[in-house]
Amino acid sequence: MSRTRTPVGRQVESGVIDLGDHQFESGKRIPNLEVAYEAYGEFTGQNAVLVCHGLTGSQHVAGYGDESGVSGQARAWWSDIVGPGKAIDTNEYYVVCVNVPGSCYGTSGPASEGPDGEPWGTDFPPVTVADWTRAQRRLLDSLGVGRLHAVVGGSVGGMNALDWAVRYPDDVARLVVVASAARLDPQCLGLDAVARRAITTDPNWNGGDYYGDDHPNPEQGLGLARQLGHLMYLSKDSMDRKFGRRSAGRGGRGDAYPADPAAVFFPYREVESYLDYQAEKFTDRFDANSYLYLTRAMDDFDLAEGYESDAAALAAFEGEALLVSFTGDWHFTTDQSESLAGAFRRVGIPVAHHVVESDHGHDAFLVEPEKVGPPLADFVAEGVAGRAVTDTATDGGEPDTDTDFAPVHSSLFSR
Amino acid sequence: MSRTRTPVGRQVESGVIDLGDHQFESGKRIPNLEVAYEAYGEFTGQNAVLVCHGLTGSQHVAGYGDESGVSGQARAWWSDIVGPGKAIDTNEYYVVCVNVPGSCYGTSGPASEGPDGEPWGTDFPPVTVADWTRAQRRLLDSLGVGRLHAVVGGSVGGMNALDWAVRYPDDVARLVVVASAARLDPQCLGLDAVARRAITTDPNWNGGDYYGDDHPNPEQGLGLARQLGHLMYLSKDSMDRKFGRRSAGRGGRGDAYPADPAAVFFPYREVESYLDYQAEKFTDRFDANSYLYLTRAMDDFDLAEGYESDAAALAAFEGEALLVSFTGDWHFTTDQSESLAGAFRRVGIPVAHHVVESDHGHDAFLVEPEKVGPPLADFVAEGVAGRAVTDTATDGGEPDTDTDFAPVHSSLFSR
Repeated sequence: MSRTRTPVGRQVESGVIDLGDHQFESGKRIPNLEVAYEAYGEFTGQNAVLVCHGLTGSQHVAGYGDESGVSGQARAWWSDIVGPGKAIDTNEYYVVCVNVPGSCYGTSGPASEGPDGEPWGTDFPPVTVADWTRAQRRLLDSLGVGRLHAVVGGSVGGMNALDWAVRYPDDVARLVVVASAARLDPQCLGLDAVARRAITTDPNWNGGDYYGDDHPNPEQGLGLARQLGHLMYLSKDSMDRKFGRRSAGRGGRGDAYPADPAAVFFPYREVESYLDYQAEKFTDRFDANSYLYLTRAMDDFDLAEGYESDAAALAAFEGEALLVSFTGDWHFTTDQSESLAGAFRRVGIPVAHHVVESDHGHDAFLVEPEKVGPPLADFVAEGVAGRAVTDTATDGGEPDTDTDFAPVHSSLFSR
Repeated sequence: MSRTRTPVGRQVESGVIDLGDHQFESGKRIPNLEVAYEAYGEFTGQNAVLVCHGLTGSQHVAGYGDESGVSGQARAWWSDIVGPGKAIDTNEYYVVCVNVPGSCYGTSGPASEGPDGEPWGTDFPPVTVADWTRAQRRLLDSLGVGRLHAVVGGSVGGMNALDWAVRYPDDVARLVVVASAARLDPQCLGLDAVARRAITTDPNWNGGDYYGDDHPNPEQGLGLARQLGHLMYLSKDSMDRKFGRRSAGRGGRGDAYPADPAAVFFPYREVESYLDYQAEKFTDRFDANSYLYLTRAMDDFDLAEGYESDAAALAAFEGEALLVSFTGDWHFTTDQSESLAGAFRRVGIPVAHHVVESDHGHDAFLVEPEKVGPPLADFVAEGVAGRAVTDTATDGGEPDTDTDFAPVHSSLFSR
């Protein structure tokens, strides 16, 4: 708890709750599932908003709270959107964010202590998006929160939000899915597989048993995985603008990633310097096994699993939905969101697919709050009728793909 | 030499020529540059065609010749295009293909023997595309070939071909640049940097000194690098078609790439199985140091280097040029080829930019010979006036990007 640090009107509650025995989707159980969460604002009974974090995010969604020991994206990762007076206004809503099982920010995962007093490692049960949702449901129960005013998620957090609509269709009034999809495409599955391979082929990974002072961490593998992640989050355009082919100077290579002797003839480029910096920052804050667990959960998620179609999976949901996508995002494309919008439409669920023109790539949902905030605020307050909310199917029919989506592609590839 | 193996009319010459002392662009010298080449057909004095291979290709461009000890893409990598009666007809042209310095198919590179009798390793001089061109020039001199009827290259081989037009502008009548660009964009630079990092952080890489029976090869790192390469060569569409999200069955993982225990709950997908298979095949046939050397040469290539612009670099070239690009290629995009075509046009060089509608990704130049062959054959025979040659600027003015290039993008990202 860190209420003492926050000014009046900025109520925040940071905690870890032991939910006791928990059975995972795989059938495996653990005797004590601990779940770390952060909650902002005051609960009035009808104003709870669950925010679902992305792959390497944490419960620290807003810019205040207990952030001791966290850094990078784990720290206040969406404070431009969530906070007092922000799009998701913590003066009005009771915002809860829960670190998902399998992660490493306080919730049980491979790095936490198992029954034998040693870290679980890869003996921790496999984790799916459904496990995240069910753990969140149990955590909210323990906080006395029943029905949610809204569930909001970005990236794989959007998959988590979608899973709420399938698993607990009566518990959610408004669903916000930002820069996400009903499932990953095989290109992203392939990149994730290579990222995991980089970790598991790092000798320091040691079958997942690398905890403790006497073992080095698989930093090289985890660093490579993170670099691939960053390449997936950026677009050709944003990389052109950020780095071009500029040199960061010769001999400036980070010690963590030694280059070979023949390399010094060539420039160390800004793009490489950026990737090396990101790798170093990340290996300081994230657990390699968690990266394996969470990417597998993401890859495995398929909205239609157990149903005949995406639409059938969503049919029982009685709320409204907002999908936000970004034209420069090739990780979770605008086309994928449009396909998802079609599934909502087919079963008569009020949905708006709000397309944001951006060349920022997948990162846009984090770095362009001025474009994301208004539709999000208005939707959470008023649903699909919200003023700043736009929709690709203005008359409820098929979207005009030619005009709506041409910019996606030209912004992705024009130089 | 392997003339004995080939039937009449299929003359082929495989050999390695020692060009003696050679100075590289870096200023470093080696006492004996050996260059492996293959030549098909009969030289008549005016009919020589140089084909430049891609990153991991070899001199074995056509489907006959001495292929002992080579496999994969190194073996007859363009036999659908080069051969008797093919688009580049070896009954008509004397086709020469040269393994580039830094590679590992007989031409000097890091794996070849240095002056001390040991493999060079990373003491081999850094290699640039200019070094490839200059070595090819010296090899052709030794074969008695002066002016070339054509230089043809795909992918980084296209950069090699462009370098010919800059470095030896009087020596080339017709230039063919397939699926290439004036330079790599930062997204591809980033992916290549990660691939190299995977090799140099493999402990078995050992600073580049892993040759001999008592050292294991850095197979894990090289395998990861190759997997990233394959992801760059495919498109979202081609991956959707080839793999979808289909499972290849549980427990089918290759031994070379052990997964962690918690992974077995999840399917081993076809995309992962394909990537693992490609990695295994590749590590059997390619040298890890060569992969470092050749990707650095590719990343370093910039057509405009030493000039004010791409156009200025090309200005002395007096031949004609054909650029072929593929709408589904995100490694070397149609936009990049169009920009290159603009450079030729600005200095008045006859050029045709032939865009092939394809969703095959970068691989298209290898796997769609029925689309590549006709424009290539007609251009080599008749120049830009060739019947099957199309051009984005039909009236010599600016191309109509809206109509010509919209399909690029929609085919890349539509599901």
